[in-house]
Amino acid sequence: MAHILLLHGPNLNLLGQREPDVYGSDSLESIDMAARKQVESANMRFSSLQSNSEAELINAIQHAKVDNVSLIVINPAAFTHTSVALRDALLAVDIPFIEVHLSNPHRREAFRRHSYFSDVALAVVAGFGADSYRYAIDAAIKTLQH
Amino acid sequence: MAHILLLHGPNLNLLGQREPDVYGSDSLESIDMAARKQVESANMRFSSLQSNSEAELINAIQHAKVDNVSLIVINPAAFTHTSVALRDALLAVDIPFIEVHLSNPHRREAFRRHSYFSDVALAVVAGFGADSYRYAIDAAIKTLQH
Amino acid sequence: MAHILLLHGPNLNLLGQREPDVYGSDSLESIDMAARKQVESANMRFSSLQSNSEAELINAIQHAKVDNVSLIVINPAAFTHTSVALRDALLAVDIPFIEVHLSNPHRREAFRRHSYFSDVALAVVAGFGADSYRYAIDAAIKTLQH
Amino acid sequence: MAHILLLHGPNLNLLGQREPDVYGSDSLESIDMAARKQVESANMRFSSLQSNSEAELINAIQHAKVDNVSLIVINPAAFTHTSVALRDALLAVDIPFIEVHLSNPHRREAFRRHSYFSDVALAVVAGFGADSYRYAIDAAIKTLQH
Amino acid sequence: MAHILLLHGPNLNLLGQREPDVYGSDSLESIDMAARKQVESANMRFSSLQSNSEAELINAIQHAKVDNVSLIVINPAAFTHTSVALRDALLAVDIPFIEVHLSNPHRREAFRRHSYFSDVALAVVAGFGADSYRYAIDAAIKTLQH
Amino acid sequence: MAHILLLHGPNLNLLGQREPDVYGSDSLESIDMAARKQVESANMRFSSLQSNSEAELINAIQHAKVDNVSLIVINPAAFTHTSVALRDALLAVDIPFIEVHLSNPHRREAFRRHSYFSDVALAVVAGFGADSYRYAIDAAIKTLQH
Amino acid sequence: MAHILLLHGPNLNLLGQREPDVYGSDSLESIDMAARKQVESANMRFSSLQSNSEAELINAIQHAKVDNVSLIVINPAAFTHTSVALRDALLAVDIPFIEVHLSNPHRREAFRRHSYFSDVALAVVAGFGADSYRYAIDAAIKTLQH
Amino acid sequence: MAHILLLHGPNLNLLGQREPDVYGSDSLESIDMAARKQVESANMRFSSLQSNSEAELINAIQHAKVDNVSLIVINPAAFTHTSVALRDALLAVDIPFIEVHLSNPHRREAFRRHSYFSDVALAVVAGFGADSYRYAIDAAIKTLQH
Amino acid sequence: MAHILLLHGPNLNLLGQREPDVYGSDSLESIDMAARKQVESANMRFSSLQSNSEAELINAIQHAKVDNVSLIVINPAAFTHTSVALRDALLAVDIPFIEVHLSNPHRREAFRRHSYFSDVALAVVAGFGADSYRYAIDAAIKTLQH
Amino acid sequence: MAHILLLHGPNLNLLGQREPDVYGSDSLESIDMAARKQVESANMRFSSLQSNSEAELINAIQHAKVDNVSLIVINPAAFTHTSVALRDALLAVDIPFIEVHLSNPHRREAFRRHSYFSDVALAVVAGFGADSYRYAIDAAIKTLQH
Amino acid sequence: MAHILLLHGPNLNLLGQREPDVYGSDSLESIDMAARKQVESANMRFSSLQSNSEAELINAIQHAKVDNVSLIVINPAAFTHTSVALRDALLAVDIPFIEVHLSNPHRREAFRRHSYFSDVALAVVAGFGADSYRYAIDAAIKTLQH
Amino acid sequence: MAHILLLHGPNLNLLGQREPDVYGSDSLESIDMAARKQVESANMRFSSLQSNSEAELINAIQHAKVDNVSLIVINPAAFTHTSVALRDALLAVDIPFIEVHLSNPHRREAFRRHSYFSDVALAVVAGFGADSYRYAIDAAIKTLQH
Repeated sequence: MAHILLLHGPNLNLLGQREPDVYGSDSLESIDMAARKQVESANMRFSSLQSNSEAELINAIQHAKVDNVSLIVINPAAFTHTSVALRDALLAVDIPFIEVHLSNPHRREAFRRHSYFSDVALAVVAGFGADSYRYAIDAAIKTLQH
Repeated sequence: MAHILLLHGPNLNLLGQREPDVYGSDSLESIDMAARKQVESANMRFSSLQSNSEAELINAIQHAKVDNVSLIVINPAAFTHTSVALRDALLAVDIPFIEVHLSNPHRREAFRRHSYFSDVALAVVAGFGADSYRYAIDAAIKTLQH
Repeated sequence: MAHILLLHGPNLNLLGQREPDVYGSDSLESIDMAARKQVESANMRFSSLQSNSEAELINAIQHAKVDNVSLIVINPAAFTHTSVALRDALLAVDIPFIEVHLSNPHRREAFRRHSYFSDVALAVVAGFGADSYRYAIDAAIKTLQH
Repeated sequence: MAHILLLHGPNLNLLGQREPDVYGSDSLESIDMAARKQVESANMRFSSLQSNSEAELINAIQHAKVDNVSLIVINPAAFTHTSVALRDALLAVDIPFIEVHLSNPHRREAFRRHSYFSDVALAVVAGFGADSYRYAIDAAIKTLQH
Repeated sequence: MAHILLLHGPNLNLLGQREPDVYGSDSLESIDMAARKQVESANMRFSSLQSNSEAELINAIQHAKVDNVSLIVINPAAFTHTSVALRDALLAVDIPFIEVHLSNPHRREAFRRHSYFSDVALAVVAGFGADSYRYAIDAAIKTLQH
Repeated sequence: MAHILLLHGPNLNLLGQREPDVYGSDSLESIDMAARKQVESANMRFSSLQSNSEAELINAIQHAKVDNVSLIVINPAAFTHTSVALRDALLAVDIPFIEVHLSNPHRREAFRRHSYFSDVALAVVAGFGADSYRYAIDAAIKTLQH
Repeated sequence: MAHILLLHGPNLNLLGQREPDVYGSDSLESIDMAARKQVESANMRFSSLQSNSEAELINAIQHAKVDNVSLIVINPAAFTHTSVALRDALLAVDIPFIEVHLSNPHRREAFRRHSYFSDVALAVVAGFGADSYRYAIDAAIKTLQH
Repeated sequence: MAHILLLHGPNLNLLGQREPDVYGSDSLESIDMAARKQVESANMRFSSLQSNSEAELINAIQHAKVDNVSLIVINPAAFTHTSVALRDALLAVDIPFIEVHLSNPHRREAFRRHSYFSDVALAVVAGFGADSYRYAIDAAIKTLQH
Repeated sequence: MAHILLLHGPNLNLLGQREPDVYGSDSLESIDMAARKQVESANMRFSSLQSNSEAELINAIQHAKVDNVSLIVINPAAFTHTSVALRDALLAVDIPFIEVHLSNPHRREAFRRHSYFSDVALAVVAGFGADSYRYAIDAAIKTLQH
Repeated sequence: MAHILLLHGPNLNLLGQREPDVYGSDSLESIDMAARKQVESANMRFSSLQSNSEAELINAIQHAKVDNVSLIVINPAAFTHTSVALRDALLAVDIPFIEVHLSNPHRREAFRRHSYFSDVALAVVAGFGADSYRYAIDAAIKTLQH
Repeated sequence: MAHILLLHGPNLNLLGQREPDVYGSDSLESIDMAARKQVESANMRFSSLQSNSEAELINAIQHAKVDNVSLIVINPAAFTHTSVALRDALLAVDIPFIEVHLSNPHRREAFRRHSYFSDVALAVVAGFGADSYRYAIDAAIKTLQH
Repeated sequence: MAHILLLHGPNLNLLGQREPDVYGSDSLESIDMAARKQVESANMRFSSLQSNSEAELINAIQHAKVDNVSLIVINPAAFTHTSVALRDALLAVDIPFIEVHLSNPHRREAFRRHSYFSDVALAVVAGFGADSYRYAIDAAIKTLQH
């Protein structure tokens, strides 16, 4: 049974409260719930994790291998620009992944234009708010159905 | 009546023939047809243009103003990295737009990492093949329905 | 009889409509008319062209040679930052030219600080709105009267 | 009741033991005690945390919102130069903060000249040893008294 | 009564003597006299200063505030590329200004391509010799007449 | 029957008239005629196009696929340094090509040292005037004869 | 008897009048008076100088040696980013100094992020308005009391 | 009794499973066991830790001081390129260390060429697989025997 | 009698053996023999040298002056990117030269894109294998026949 | 019979005399003798060469092919940072090699951080003094025994 | 009668007192006296000026023209790295000059490696202490005697 | 007895013949002869060498140690910009040296502005033609007499 893991990086637990004009008013719970519904409707398994800790996210990625995760959807948030260790974890488990951003990082500070993930991701989607996740999950399902 | 314009930059007319492993096997016609169906199902007007000419694309964007286009979905292709004139046309008509790429440009040559569009786009979606368009059109419809 | 050619780059046909707070409310027609009056009052010949097409502008510059144009006043607009081909056309016909900008490009995005024209132009004038043209035409006439 | 949170980044728990000629001989405890005294004398609430873990510091900043912290004084130590996630946490909770350094980072390696915090901090104080904290706390109190 | 101040930076006192093929044969006196005539014809007050001293120019700008100067026309000459203090003086008194150059700095050494003034100037005019001043004064008068 | 397409970029129609000391006194017609003779002597088909329009050159490259062109010899002229779209067209049709320059671009402005073609070209020849073409055509013929 | 010299760079004489939202409403006189009081309360000698002239500031620093100044507190203002000569004067007299800024230069233009003083200063304090001086003077006194 | 601490950075727990063609087929356990044997044969004490958490590694380094560790052998893995905090921990405890890499980072992505450790390490060894550790431990023993 | 000198830089003696898919299967001897035949057929004198020693190549260039060499054809190989001394030798003897490469250096490592020869060479030809030499010799002969 | 060649670059003949605190007190002879013993104990053939001449080192590498050398251990010394020709020789003969440094180049001038060898070497070892060689030879033997 | 002007930039009045290990123990007076003797022995006129003021140095250079100065020897000190205005003064009066430094600026901070004078100076001499002046004066005399 | 070694880098043997307007008309022999006379008049030993070979120059520097050379005067010519090996030789023998250039390298190509010698030289003299040597030898003698 195909299994999709959804990972959220640091500060995304504040979603809905934090700058709603930038990040939208959806909470992380509602995003996770919607993603679960999408995935389970396709008869696939869903799990998700948000963490402010790079180590916890690495552990989750490593565990994904054991747990037969077939595809990871990840919003690395601030770790997008700084974490080689997360990149290495994704490469090490060799599970394809899609990079997601709620807002469009190109509209913000210059340092947000560099991602340690994009050049090894299947695809990148940014700026659609909660729908960024919906599209990524949709693509994940389609990829696994082929 | 809301109106969505879909623009395709240079060499996208070769879609389906050109490097199918990179760009997928969908032709531009089938992508346009699918987009039209999506848009018209939402009771909105749809038009589209592919051109290898920067000037034609600028003219289409300028005409969009007159034609009451509410949102542009654009795959600038190679012009992504070189055309300030297209960027200026989009800014001049002041119509919001979404940037689309079939493949993930971060997996390719370094010069493809810079876009003259991303920092003024609503959102960016790249690497999902024909589905990049589907997601962008979906988002365009949702944006206009609010 | 001295002959001055006035060239306008991409998107300048929108002048007066487009962001009037940035570019002023004068239309391109009124600018051309004023320039024609200035030039013809000095008993010189005047012609002008706006185009969104780099190729058309190159053709106009090449034709200027045949047409005995003595001096070109050009607002390359977005092509300022990207067109080596226009620069080469100007060098090829070896007609002196003055670079004009309506707004001051140094107040805008960093990429607008580089011009492919300034280092081979006679002079550069930027930020005076429609008067940028008036000064450039005035200087063109004076140059040709000497 | 106004509430000031004092945060200390990685390795600052070694203060007093570690290179006393660079960082002074005050321990972190004595610094915290002095800061508490300063804050409580002004009838404000004080709390503090040192952590070698970026995640714990992020959590503390997120909790600060709930805990009605009015101003944060932070010495990000090594995270100054690497942590976008801490920066994002501070922006997300939207609590003003002051950046503090014991030593003057400009006297050290070139990579210490870039801070992910200074451009969003209220103010920056560096090089006064334990007094860097005293001044920052003083300023925090004054800011909250206005 | 509107008041225009014309400032000339270092070495411009040599005008007419110094490299006439580059800077033209007009002396600074004749430029000032022409500018005065232009300004007084428009029923405005005119004053001017040339100095080789950055401090004197700063003082003149600061005094301009007291003296009700409405607009400054400045040729910062070599200070264009090096003086943050002059830039700050102009920002501090908050009087709009126009940047003028006799020759076209883009035709010269690479370090002359950066100006500490252009991004805060109303407009920039360069390469028309003494006419650079004439156009700038003309624009100054027009700006004040609106 | 092998087919060689010779493409000339912008401003090359001026050849022979334009700066003969830099580009030689051969006209484009005589270069094309000589190339045709070379190619037809080898019992291969020859076609050629000069255009100032990037779009026309892209169209010609796309048409080359349909027209069974086996090898392209291209002098991208100014587009050498700016056109990702032409590069993409060449990659899309997957026809090998040789890059030609009349003059040696390394003797000129610094921006002429970068080519968007060289790293995907079979070979590069520059600085031999009309003979640059002769050598490239010769190599094209030899390549196709193997 | 210990002696503290307080130096203010260009445009700081406008303090209180100039952009009060950026620089606060304290005048330079009130800052100097407060500093004098602080210093004299500690039974030390105080002197101060503001100048728009780099040369006057250099002279003051050179004179400080003769005048037995023990520590300099300096707000180099715009000279922070441009004056090697002031830096050299401070190194030549070998008197320790503290660098002060009213506002936080990291919140402003990119060129304000480089200081010719920070890497040779004892300490740096920026962004506390008039209190930046108060902290620096306090630190100066403490340093001299040890 | 001399004491050698062996530290392994993030994702090294996957050793043997992860890309064996790049990292070899030895597991971390076998590497640790071999290292322990080497160290204990020299009558020295051995301890080791792998962690995906930067904070845990910092804590281990800080604890090393208390634990009388004489030399650290560290493979910082992905933290090589991003962790100033680990570097600072090593500097703070002032214990000499040797930097180890299983593979040769210069054969990989450009960002892997910069290390925050090499310029303060005793020595660096990279590319020998499990033998990189063997050589580093050998050197550690020899250093401590002198 | 015109005299052409053909110089081959380091490692070119391995030609034919070394990576034949990159450099072709022609040996240096056969290349030299073909070149000699070309040159002598035109009634000119031919000499050639391969050396792995920069000094020997410099000596050969200096000797060329004495030996009345009229034109040098040089494949500097690895010295292309590192030898200012060879460049200086060519400038010192003031004999025109043509730069030749067997393979296309732009298809290889980034450091191979810079040449210390191209900006002072008559022409550059790269990527045609042994024919690169043939074309260069042909051009040398033609140049000397004019 | 396997054959290991040990190459030493410029100035390494001074070993033992030159800055013993940086490079250790072992002479090159003792290093060579130890290496020979290591290699011959493994029943392999050993040869070595030190040269201050880049050409001699290139010749030795080229000769290694003829001489059936199976692996090269090289300390390129100063040529590490400047010699593309040595790199090319190693690539041309296609013999795997290990890069060795006595001291740790990252502790020295910035220009020593770039190596023309590391990205094509099997492995790199630096900073262990004479033991750098011992480890490299050990690894060479092991590699050849597999 | 030939006339040599010797100019000394900021802080050179401290010579002899300031860091004698860096700048030597000669005072500026003794240097001037020696230079005068050298010049007058050659029957030439000598004058000199030290100033901490850029404006005074510019004035002296401008006055040199009137005063028939034939050659200027200048130690721009800190202005070496920052003063375009002094460079422009030297270019404006078109008097050849020699650049002198007491110490070797390449041994100091990186920013001291760039000079605004060297590329337009006749010659540069640095690091010989007071003898730097002696050599420059000697060369000045010789130049004027030819 | 003090011993001064004078070293000349590549192509300096052509002195007097090569571009006399740049390098003067003195031959290397006359320069050597003059230097010998200067040195022997001071009762010191003199030797000199010119070589186009980096290895020979390294050998000469290494031999200098044995030969009790007290100071080296070196014109590294083209090796100035490329030879770390020569720099290392000078550092290895630890003999102080003076860097000499006939012409002023700052007036030439940008790559000539970087020297691998200046930051470790006692002093640098450039642009005085043959007198550059005379001054360097004079300084060498004076240094040895102290």
